[in-house]
Amino acid sequence: MDCTFIVIGHRAKTTADFEFNDISGSGGSLDTIARCIATTFCLSNGLRKDARAFLILLGGKDAPKTIRICGSEIKGLNADERSIAGLIRAALKKKAKRDEWTKSTTGVYISKAGFEDVLRELSEEGVTFVHLRESGVDVREFEFPSHPCFILGDNTDLTEEEEGVLNAHPFLKVSVGPKSYHASHCITIVHNEMDRRCP
Amino acid sequence: MDCTFIVIGHRAKTTADFEFNDISGSGGSLDTIARCIATTFCLSNGLRKDARAFLILLGGKDAPKTIRICGSEIKGLNADERSIAGLIRAALKKKAKRDEWTKSTTGVYISKAGFEDVLRELSEEGVTFVHLRESGVDVREFEFPSHPCFILGDNTDLTEEEEGVLNAHPFLKVSVGPKSYHASHCITIVHNEMDRRCP
Repeated sequence: MDCTFIVIGHRAKTTADFEFNDISGSGGSLDTIARCIATTFCLSNGLRKDARAFLILLGGKDAPKTIRICGSEIKGLNADERSIAGLIRAALKKKAKRDEWTKSTTGVYISKAGFEDVLRELSEEGVTFVHLRESGVDVREFEFPSHPCFILGDNTDLTEEEEGVLNAHPFLKVSVGPKSYHASHCITIVHNEMDRRCP
Repeated sequence: MDCTFIVIGHRAKTTADFEFNDISGSGGSLDTIARCIATTFCLSNGLRKDARAFLILLGGKDAPKTIRICGSEIKGLNADERSIAGLIRAALKKKAKRDEWTKSTTGVYISKAGFEDVLRELSEEGVTFVHLRESGVDVREFEFPSHPCFILGDNTDLTEEEEGVLNAHPFLKVSVGPKSYHASHCITIVHNEMDRRCP
């Protein structure tokens, strides 16, 4: 089953001048985004080729920017935060345009798109939006659509404004469990459920 | 429900002289260990006080060493790999003894114990060992014991020798899903299942 994850990095740096040794602080929680990328794509023995990630970066003076990573294209991905921060930094060094994806490394693209633009593009593609939140239907009872696109915030949930943007589209709500989990852990749990449906 | 995770870091550095900017390479996959610590303890809104981790470090000239982290004692834990590597390095700077735990930071201890010693100590404590492996019973069908102690390798499964050490104790086998997952992802899935049993 193909799947897409949109992760909103509310403070995530949009310029390449963050400190590599402090991706958590000066990168605006880029460590959180990095962990989301790792759980989106990494299996112990390979990559999830049917997964995609859209990382909406909203921190710093060049916001918004979106990085798109396509599992069907990437050749390899180390799961450690520093390697993934390197991929992000390489993408941030590229010229980003609003209506076009600029290729950075293989399978990694960047644009000036924000949350609204990304939702519009994916809506036209025919995905079904699924907002991951505690009040949603249990993922174990969830009837997965053919092309689910899961939406989640990094360290904080969607802002009221982002909720408004999402509300302009039809979407479903899904919960992954009775506790409040990190975004990357939510992705692991969703993947595990999909793996069980289509092993 | 209390729970313990034993993670075996087959190449994980046992001296504090690894490169902070290369915990994956010169640290002997300490990034993997760090992610396991993060998923063992970190919730979005706090820490799992009822969890414990034993990290068996087997790399380098001072092997073995074991770091014990007690959720009931630690005051805070940042989920990023670099912060957690800092905790590990601080512990590695302490004098480690075989039959005694030396305190490093709050809730973090180190000793010269190896896998066999740790199993013996925990066995005397009354935990039930649970080996996480693909051939085990599905975690969703698993009757959790009162004090489960999950055992997993970092990037590779247990060696034949380690299997031999484990075989000296009674243990159960559990699988977390139909794919081959990273160790830290296994921990997330086990936690999610336990959360559902005892929300």
